[in-house]
Amino acid sequence: MSDDDLRHAVLRANLDCVNHGLVVSTFGNASGIDRAAGRILIKPSGVPYDRLSAGDMVACDLDGRALDNRLRPSSDLQTHAVLYRAFPGIGGVVHTHSTYATIMAQARRPIPCLGTTHADYFHGTIPVTRDLTPDEIARDYVLMTGEVIAETFAALDPLAIPAVLVAGHGPFVWGRTPDEAAHNALILEEVARMAWHCMVLDPAPQPITQALLDRHYLRKHGAGATYGQGQP
Amino acid sequence: MSDDDLRHAVLRANLDCVNHGLVVSTFGNASGIDRAAGRILIKPSGVPYDRLSAGDMVACDLDGRALDNRLRPSSDLQTHAVLYRAFPGIGGVVHTHSTYATIMAQARRPIPCLGTTHADYFHGTIPVTRDLTPDEIARDYVLMTGEVIAETFAALDPLAIPAVLVAGHGPFVWGRTPDEAAHNALILEEVARMAWHCMVLDPAPQPITQALLDRHYLRKHGAGATYGQGQP
Amino acid sequence: MSDDDLRHAVLRANLDCVNHGLVVSTFGNASGIDRAAGRILIKPSGVPYDRLSAGDMVACDLDGRALDNRLRPSSDLQTHAVLYRAFPGIGGVVHTHSTYATIMAQARRPIPCLGTTHADYFHGTIPVTRDLTPDEIARDYVLMTGEVIAETFAALDPLAIPAVLVAGHGPFVWGRTPDEAAHNALILEEVARMAWHCMVLDPAPQPITQALLDRHYLRKHGAGATYGQGQP
Amino acid sequence: MSDDDLRHAVLRANLDCVNHGLVVSTFGNASGIDRAAGRILIKPSGVPYDRLSAGDMVACDLDGRALDNRLRPSSDLQTHAVLYRAFPGIGGVVHTHSTYATIMAQARRPIPCLGTTHADYFHGTIPVTRDLTPDEIARDYVLMTGEVIAETFAALDPLAIPAVLVAGHGPFVWGRTPDEAAHNALILEEVARMAWHCMVLDPAPQPITQALLDRHYLRKHGAGATYGQGQP
Repeated sequence: MSDDDLRHAVLRANLDCVNHGLVVSTFGNASGIDRAAGRILIKPSGVPYDRLSAGDMVACDLDGRALDNRLRPSSDLQTHAVLYRAFPGIGGVVHTHSTYATIMAQARRPIPCLGTTHADYFHGTIPVTRDLTPDEIARDYVLMTGEVIAETFAALDPLAIPAVLVAGHGPFVWGRTPDEAAHNALILEEVARMAWHCMVLDPAPQPITQALLDRHYLRKHGAGATYGQGQP
Repeated sequence: MSDDDLRHAVLRANLDCVNHGLVVSTFGNASGIDRAAGRILIKPSGVPYDRLSAGDMVACDLDGRALDNRLRPSSDLQTHAVLYRAFPGIGGVVHTHSTYATIMAQARRPIPCLGTTHADYFHGTIPVTRDLTPDEIARDYVLMTGEVIAETFAALDPLAIPAVLVAGHGPFVWGRTPDEAAHNALILEEVARMAWHCMVLDPAPQPITQALLDRHYLRKHGAGATYGQGQP
Repeated sequence: MSDDDLRHAVLRANLDCVNHGLVVSTFGNASGIDRAAGRILIKPSGVPYDRLSAGDMVACDLDGRALDNRLRPSSDLQTHAVLYRAFPGIGGVVHTHSTYATIMAQARRPIPCLGTTHADYFHGTIPVTRDLTPDEIARDYVLMTGEVIAETFAALDPLAIPAVLVAGHGPFVWGRTPDEAAHNALILEEVARMAWHCMVLDPAPQPITQALLDRHYLRKHGAGATYGQGQP
Repeated sequence: MSDDDLRHAVLRANLDCVNHGLVVSTFGNASGIDRAAGRILIKPSGVPYDRLSAGDMVACDLDGRALDNRLRPSSDLQTHAVLYRAFPGIGGVVHTHSTYATIMAQARRPIPCLGTTHADYFHGTIPVTRDLTPDEIARDYVLMTGEVIAETFAALDPLAIPAVLVAGHGPFVWGRTPDEAAHNALILEEVARMAWHCMVLDPAPQPITQALLDRHYLRKHGAGATYGQGQP
């Protein structure tokens, strides 16, 4: 993907989050990475969405240092950078404050797999991070947010469960591309909405069986995928 | 109904589900049947809704075999085919992941008739299927989804209760035509939304009386119907 | 008000209910009355809202007999007619299946005055009717729906509390004009939405004081009204 | 800010509240103040939002006396005036009946800081006023509404917590400018929506740590702010 294509993909991921109602005010940011070039492109900080252009996306290296000086990158850049370093298979990261995912993050409730909508995208429970300690917050809050996500995924496959709820904060979502990350963020919000409603009827709702989870997840992912029009 | 009319009816049913907000992403499909010709027309798999045309609807026989090779049919085709075989009176089937109907399917809560909105369309409780066994899922998941629906209706009239909640999955809805199936899917979502809210106030809410259920259902259905402008 | 003005007011009340999202499908109807002429104008039955014109409104007498034969009146006409006979001060009636008002009707929960939004329009608790008996339903269901509303208001002022929840069915709302009835239906929905949410947090929420209820209600109604730009 | 600029800012704050869905019917009002001139500009009472112009904003002095006679000011003017006198640092006040903030006001539930969305704007719990006494309501209801807000903030910094829930009524929100007040009202509604949902899952949800609250609040406010593109 050319730099220009990636710039447009990152812009599109940012705008998709807004157009799907996942972002309140300017609370959200999307990024993408060119692994070969070691370059992250991310939304600039605090710029209104209706004025964003592809050229505004800020180029940074994998350590989160801006490569040009025109606009300041999103204040969450260091979290994105940690995720790109910790999860080598991902190509896009999205952070939103979408309503139900944020509610579950605030309530510190992992989202069990209660249905096939969830199973089509997330191969198991979507976890919640532990709280950051006051010391971690004081030392380097944004970076440590990334580190606590990586810690949460120590025994999980980030491509099989491409989202996390940061305790008391909100969701970070990723994918192989910025477009996929934004799409996963939309599905996460719907999955969180349904899980919240199920938990209100039943505080410990029954997950679907492992057989059904596997059937749906593997229908859309991996070598045996049977969904869609296939590859040309 | 001509093949062309049915193609347009199936397209319209698919688009109605999207336009009424019953479908997230591409999670939905509608079909119709020409009983005389033994032909099902169904949405192709994974094609974005804004590019669907009537000509894209995939023709299949009642065993669910595609009759042409251009586009792959919806991955849920075999479920639709079972329903057409099991319920001879129906002419259209719709599957959505609409929010509240899916919540009730995930929570495995049948929807009792709590009000006249329900009674105008569904002559009693909308049932939930049992879970599929791991063996059924492994053997032929999509077909068995249809079979478990048919099993659920062993003692029910599918035209009097034109919807089911598949446990851990979501609703399947039908009608005498694709248009009616899509309309029933819209009403089901509203009925599910209201039932969920009633159950939160009262875990075992009181259904309406049989007399009121009959009065409303029969007002719109059967020989004594008094609703609308009548037939010319 | 001329016949033509009333026709347009009734059409407008019907369309306002749709445009404010109070009506699902064709589940709703609004009417108005010319008391001097003894004429009710009401929406025809089952006609799609986007094709309604002022000329389609069906003229009936106070006994609910259609005065012309072009279109069949709303199937709820007899309920409207009872209300016009029982409540001499009202000039418009609206029936919707708006989501939260219908939920409260299904749950048979009167809506206590929990806040000033309620108090600005409804001078006390919005009541729920008793259930109709099977006998009443069999005898004359639509008419008896009106009678049970009138019975509910035996000791209430229908202009001070211009709405009722019919048990297991939905709201009927009225006002001095069709426009006011439609506006009251919109406020009722918002009041019901907020009451439902309060009752979920606290099953027996605390109403506002009588002093606050009186202050808000009387600010907008009666001789001492201080709201708005006054009369020219 | 010129009188004309302030008129437009006040108009914009009023319209922003409507466009963000915070206002039902005409239940809302926004004002701004020119501290140097001792002049408040406020929305006129009961004028439909789609006809409001900047020139319609009513000029009043700090005692809430209208300075011209064309239009009657919002019936809530005296509450605004008390807030401008009690909180010298504020430049705009907004009153809405936005759904979730009003629900929390009706339920008399202070909103604890459950997440970083809250922490970015409100440096701690958003309080609820005590109920007004019947005597206070009878004496001077609108003025006393302002006084009870001021009393609630006796030990709080109104610029660090720029909102209050008036018991049984709804939110008043403020800021350094009318635009900021309207923006804070939008964030309050989202924060209230999420808090309500958290409280349904857990009646006493766990607030975020003081360290996280401080980190987020101070990131956007005060000398150490690091968010946005900085000042030219």
